[in-house]
Amino acid sequence: MTQSVEIICVGTELLLGDILNSNAQFLAQELAKLGIAHYYQTVVGDNPERIKGVVRIARDRSQLLIFTGGLGPTPDDLTHETLADCFGVPLVEHPEILEDIARKFAQRGHILTANNHKQASLPEGAEILTNDSGSAPGIIWQPLPGLTILTFPGVPAEMQRMWREVAVPYLRSQGWGNTTIYSRTLRFWGISESALAEKVNSFFDLQNPTVAPYVNHGEVKLRVSARADSTAAAQQLIAPIEQQLRQIGGLDCYGANDDSLASVVGALLKTAQATLAVAESCTGGGLGASLTAVPGSSSYFWGGVISYDNAIKVRLLNVDEHDLAEQGAVSHTIAKQMAEGVRSRLGTTWGLSITGIAGPDGGTADKPVGLVYVGLAGPNGVQSFEHQFGALRGRTWIRNLSAATALDHLRRQLLIKLE
Amino acid sequence: MTQSVEIICVGTELLLGDILNSNAQFLAQELAKLGIAHYYQTVVGDNPERIKGVVRIARDRSQLLIFTGGLGPTPDDLTHETLADCFGVPLVEHPEILEDIARKFAQRGHILTANNHKQASLPEGAEILTNDSGSAPGIIWQPLPGLTILTFPGVPAEMQRMWREVAVPYLRSQGWGNTTIYSRTLRFWGISESALAEKVNSFFDLQNPTVAPYVNHGEVKLRVSARADSTAAAQQLIAPIEQQLRQIGGLDCYGANDDSLASVVGALLKTAQATLAVAESCTGGGLGASLTAVPGSSSYFWGGVISYDNAIKVRLLNVDEHDLAEQGAVSHTIAKQMAEGVRSRLGTTWGLSITGIAGPDGGTADKPVGLVYVGLAGPNGVQSFEHQFGALRGRTWIRNLSAATALDHLRRQLLIKLE
Repeated sequence: MTQSVEIICVGTELLLGDILNSNAQFLAQELAKLGIAHYYQTVVGDNPERIKGVVRIARDRSQLLIFTGGLGPTPDDLTHETLADCFGVPLVEHPEILEDIARKFAQRGHILTANNHKQASLPEGAEILTNDSGSAPGIIWQPLPGLTILTFPGVPAEMQRMWREVAVPYLRSQGWGNTTIYSRTLRFWGISESALAEKVNSFFDLQNPTVAPYVNHGEVKLRVSARADSTAAAQQLIAPIEQQLRQIGGLDCYGANDDSLASVVGALLKTAQATLAVAESCTGGGLGASLTAVPGSSSYFWGGVISYDNAIKVRLLNVDEHDLAEQGAVSHTIAKQMAEGVRSRLGTTWGLSITGIAGPDGGTADKPVGLVYVGLAGPNGVQSFEHQFGALRGRTWIRNLSAATALDHLRRQLLIKLE
Repeated sequence: MTQSVEIICVGTELLLGDILNSNAQFLAQELAKLGIAHYYQTVVGDNPERIKGVVRIARDRSQLLIFTGGLGPTPDDLTHETLADCFGVPLVEHPEILEDIARKFAQRGHILTANNHKQASLPEGAEILTNDSGSAPGIIWQPLPGLTILTFPGVPAEMQRMWREVAVPYLRSQGWGNTTIYSRTLRFWGISESALAEKVNSFFDLQNPTVAPYVNHGEVKLRVSARADSTAAAQQLIAPIEQQLRQIGGLDCYGANDDSLASVVGALLKTAQATLAVAESCTGGGLGASLTAVPGSSSYFWGGVISYDNAIKVRLLNVDEHDLAEQGAVSHTIAKQMAEGVRSRLGTTWGLSITGIAGPDGGTADKPVGLVYVGLAGPNGVQSFEHQFGALRGRTWIRNLSAATALDHLRRQLLIKLE
């Protein structure tokens, strides 16, 4: 018997188009990874009668119903009480849930309210699907023989953690998902999707593993996916292909999976026992923020100066006032002086700087929006690099690309020094 | 009679999670703008039996069915033939569609294939919903009295143009969407969803406008939506409710719609002709990044110091080494000294600092992960604030909440000074 699964997302905000249904995509991808077929996704508003109607339809055609949303403390959060109603059981308050919510609230200095009692009440017979990152727990429930219901909050971060840590192990224990699809994503910087595609074209015809290109936020990725009976078996299929792709990608392939340019640069700095300081103009702290997003970054990242105003460039980074006046803040000269300045002021091995025009205003004919200079000062002197990211995609795009590109310049420097 | 609408998206790629269902969000937003209520969204794969099942359910509960996807030339594009089958009518080939496709292909130097005849065949009695930007047309069809079916290709650009240019005028001509729904979202900081819900509980029973709470990234929102004949009329319904909610929310309500804490603080600084500098430890630049995400922020934000390493706190922020040793970097004392230090070093009206433990490591019994101090130095001296965000939600959550909370402290200061 093929067991059929469906996803039911509860929330009027989805019907109003306030948010994209990213939860449905996440669950769809996760089910695919587990090799579990699901045939329907339904979105319904915070309306008990319509939710009931959807549940009646779903329970007749599927064996596993996965709900997201409607677990909050407010009156329009109705998932659990409506499910209890559907299957003719009462709601039962679980003191342990209330205590757990109270403890989490205490940490943030919030007080428990009457509304929270609602979140502690689950359909009779349902087990708690624990939520370690939020207040509302979900349920694991078999209201009828051969019918399993899982509920998750609508908050993606909470839902995803609960799925990975509780739901997946439970489903496997119940015999769901006996084949597995395992993927590795190779990450590239400094090469366009089309240029990379040209190099690895032949790989796109592979059947198992498959190789597919993706691009987002200026970064190109290659996803290598294998289907097998076990993760280990899938990894064995992927390993040789990954090796060939890395060889072809060369320095442009900076990492895989959860690697970020910041985490890779961090690892290289650690290996070299080197330290880093940053001087930021148009990114306004974004470079430092991405570096310190990496746990343990304090062992190599010392800090920096956000020199948004030109006076700060002079006062805290020893930038030369005359050069500033003559060349302008967005120039090779000032990028170099900022990198040297922050390196000497903070006493680090490396100094990395960014100065550019993020827009929407401030662009001129010879210095248009999207023009960015990166400065890199190190043991062997200082360099600078000019980039033109264009005005089209706007301020956030330019700022993100500037920070990533600066990290990439440092990464390549550190790799060269390793050779 | 309330006319009910539903959206049915056909495509296995949605069930595999390969793509986000942005078509459903687009149509949801468009329907909301037209004041047309829709109660269900369904995703189903390219499978005739399951598509039929979905159509049977939908035609019994709705008067308007909007389909996307399954209009392409390949064998797994089944929407039109399955619909014809559902309502027991044959497919009829439309030569004018074939000619149109041939003409479009000629422009791109493509040749017509047998597959394209499929795209030229529509259910008997259906009108053509012309597609000027792609090959596959949709249909406008009333297979039963009181039931209208619209179909669109899955390609967003084609679907959106067809919706705006053909479907909307048709629907209006049929008496749909003679009202409009307009919404305002009030944004709150420093109050939990449940606490705010308690205060405004009575508003949740309103019918027009409606008031609904949302929460994400630690921020609580109230969405006020009104249905009326015109946007102006809807705004008139919303205005008094918004005023009451703002009164109840008090200082916790920081703005509406696209406001961010950074943009609101920026506006207040401009009004006060004041300037700001930041000193960041655990946020590593995130506070500066959020401030400079606002276009034009250079008029009030001068920059700052990322003092990730303690030595930098001493060297660039005049933090006292002995206090640092005695009290530790994460303390009221050091938060104050960082704020004063950056204010005097950069010569700004205000100095805002953050020092805390973002984790996952570095926590102790008396200084656990999630403990954060905010320092605020200004014309009337310096203050500091202690916050415990908890370790639960992790490093990114703590860093984001720290930056937002720091901005909120400055916002409240600036508002008090305005009074």
